[in-house]
Amino acid sequence: MSFDTIIDRFGTHSVKWDMMEDIYGVPAKDGIPMWVADMDFRAPDCVQNAIAKMHEHGVYGYYGDDSSYRNAICWWMQNRHGWTVDPDAIFTTHGLVNGTALCVDTFSAPGDGVVLMTPVYHAFAKVIRANNRRVVECDLSYENGRYEMDFDTWDKQMDGSEKMLILCSPHNPGGRVWTKDELEGVAAFAKRHDLILVSDEIHHDLVFGGARHIPMATIEGISDRLIMMSATTKTFNIAGSHSGNVIIHDPDLRAKFAAKMAALGMSPNSFGLHMAEAAYSPEGAAWVDDLIAYIDGNRQVFDEGINSIPGLASMKLEATYLAWVDFAGTGMTRDEFTKRVERDAKIAINHGPTFGSGGDDFLRFNLATPRSIVEQAVDRMQAAFADLQ
Amino acid sequence: MSFDTIIDRFGTHSVKWDMMEDIYGVPAKDGIPMWVADMDFRAPDCVQNAIAKMHEHGVYGYYGDDSSYRNAICWWMQNRHGWTVDPDAIFTTHGLVNGTALCVDTFSAPGDGVVLMTPVYHAFAKVIRANNRRVVECDLSYENGRYEMDFDTWDKQMDGSEKMLILCSPHNPGGRVWTKDELEGVAAFAKRHDLILVSDEIHHDLVFGGARHIPMATIEGISDRLIMMSATTKTFNIAGSHSGNVIIHDPDLRAKFAAKMAALGMSPNSFGLHMAEAAYSPEGAAWVDDLIAYIDGNRQVFDEGINSIPGLASMKLEATYLAWVDFAGTGMTRDEFTKRVERDAKIAINHGPTFGSGGDDFLRFNLATPRSIVEQAVDRMQAAFADLQ
Repeated sequence: MSFDTIIDRFGTHSVKWDMMEDIYGVPAKDGIPMWVADMDFRAPDCVQNAIAKMHEHGVYGYYGDDSSYRNAICWWMQNRHGWTVDPDAIFTTHGLVNGTALCVDTFSAPGDGVVLMTPVYHAFAKVIRANNRRVVECDLSYENGRYEMDFDTWDKQMDGSEKMLILCSPHNPGGRVWTKDELEGVAAFAKRHDLILVSDEIHHDLVFGGARHIPMATIEGISDRLIMMSATTKTFNIAGSHSGNVIIHDPDLRAKFAAKMAALGMSPNSFGLHMAEAAYSPEGAAWVDDLIAYIDGNRQVFDEGINSIPGLASMKLEATYLAWVDFAGTGMTRDEFTKRVERDAKIAINHGPTFGSGGDDFLRFNLATPRSIVEQAVDRMQAAFADLQ
Repeated sequence: MSFDTIIDRFGTHSVKWDMMEDIYGVPAKDGIPMWVADMDFRAPDCVQNAIAKMHEHGVYGYYGDDSSYRNAICWWMQNRHGWTVDPDAIFTTHGLVNGTALCVDTFSAPGDGVVLMTPVYHAFAKVIRANNRRVVECDLSYENGRYEMDFDTWDKQMDGSEKMLILCSPHNPGGRVWTKDELEGVAAFAKRHDLILVSDEIHHDLVFGGARHIPMATIEGISDRLIMMSATTKTFNIAGSHSGNVIIHDPDLRAKFAAKMAALGMSPNSFGLHMAEAAYSPEGAAWVDDLIAYIDGNRQVFDEGINSIPGLASMKLEATYLAWVDFAGTGMTRDEFTKRVERDAKIAINHGPTFGSGGDDFLRFNLATPRSIVEQAVDRMQAAFADLQ
């Protein structure tokens, strides 16, 4: 199996492929879905073997001792991220949207402000609002095609009603890998304003070239207010298992979260457990190394093609497979450039405003697909904006 | 594949097999696990084929359109239970412990009383207490080896602080299939005391001989306070998928539950969805018919063997594969009869008191295992209590 192999995902209940026509009007016949953040690649053999073994056994009863699963998580964090995890600090939630929602529910109260660095992953604002908390948008500064934190401005925004900060690290969209200085700045900001810090690091494995992801948990002096979130689902393309990890080392925060999990009768599904244990292995690590190289190649093809179109600027990704393209330079309205992408290029993409403040001029393109499809998308984009050449 | 086939479940993370020694001191070497309520049978071919198809495809991304899944649920309820379900009334939770917890959280407040007809499935009390609600135990009357409802007594117990009743239908343990008269009595009781009625019908498919399960939703005049719960997991032995259905036809209750699901960022895993759709089919129905006949056979073997021991009485099951054995007639202490079952017969069982008031003299035995194992268990029980013969 090569990442170049095109796998037909139509008719498999794939939201990305089967629903692009209904949602975006991009025809199933010849459209290219570059929206939903899953990959068009088959899971690695180690994960496939885990499913094959479950199937061969064929008895899908209640899962018991999860110590080997916890140990696999600890192994991965230690070996891939230099982060020592206590196995008892690990909770398994039904994915990280659920994990985020549980954090909001457990560590804040209705009416509280929850800070987001916008533009950012759209589900954060959704669960904050669904819990009757307030979204407090702190705009990332955008200069030289890159997002930066702006603590001086943000300090002035805080009014004391904020109780939580949800960090996206690496950042989606825009693909920033936050530096140690920046993460120390986040920790200081959280302390200064007495915020619980939820660090969603679901993209931590998908980092390119020279950049290196630093787990927030390795920043000094933050552990007493820190909730870490990670998952196998993004890295290994197993989002369907709806399984994620909330990792809490502080005993008081951990006890509160444990009580919430018990109150909601939460137990993980066995597919997610078996797959995660198989994924967090040397075989899984080797596959991820290959995957990163492949996505980095896609990124270069895409950026080169898109940036050659006058007025379009694809943000240079340090992480994630989610290209973030700025259309401001075209001088077009949002309706106009979106129409050209959807109707003319027939590409289904995520719309910028769903990511909150600062997203208006952008569209997000998912590059985790065989290279020939990325090339085709680039060709179509160049044709759709040919009048700008 | 015959139900007689013994499948080795050791080393598969099965809580029932792999943890019986740690939890009960029943040796893994030659113990018989008859506790956790899953079956030692392989899932039906239709479910196995669904997993094989997912594995062959190998891309486990986000699941989209679930209309065929919803339609399969509607088909099953109509064809197997004579119950017409609106596809839009269906929620998918992470199993029914989670479903119960969400009902308690959504439809009651801290301090409220939640009524249980005890003895009853132990997880109910657990999630009620974990949500800081009060468990109100209404004892089932136990006469002639059978549980009956006792509304006159229960009416006197109510003090107005009760807000919810969780019904187990068919009943676990004891295996009662409630009659139409009894269910109408429950509906009237719920109305009289202004209770939300949560009807957990997870055992609805596993009914023997002449008995016929009646869905609470088909009882007149209750729909405005009714939450229905069902699942494929018990019927098809796919508990590991942690997937269940909460079905709400009343628009106000449905809107409240939908808001809770959104606040918790709940989405079902794709394994549960694919398996459930495959299970709720004519092929699945034929397998269930065979399963019921087999379990009914196990039940007869077990009851005959156990009831031949003076002082022991196995309650006659109308439903479920969970035998409920009364040891009161032995005159032994609970410690003594439990020790004989665990240490002498080497059988891991559920202890009666965990089911609440009225369970003290009982042990629960899971009969969903190959007949030869049931026969072996009976032999060991007869030997362990040979002095009573």
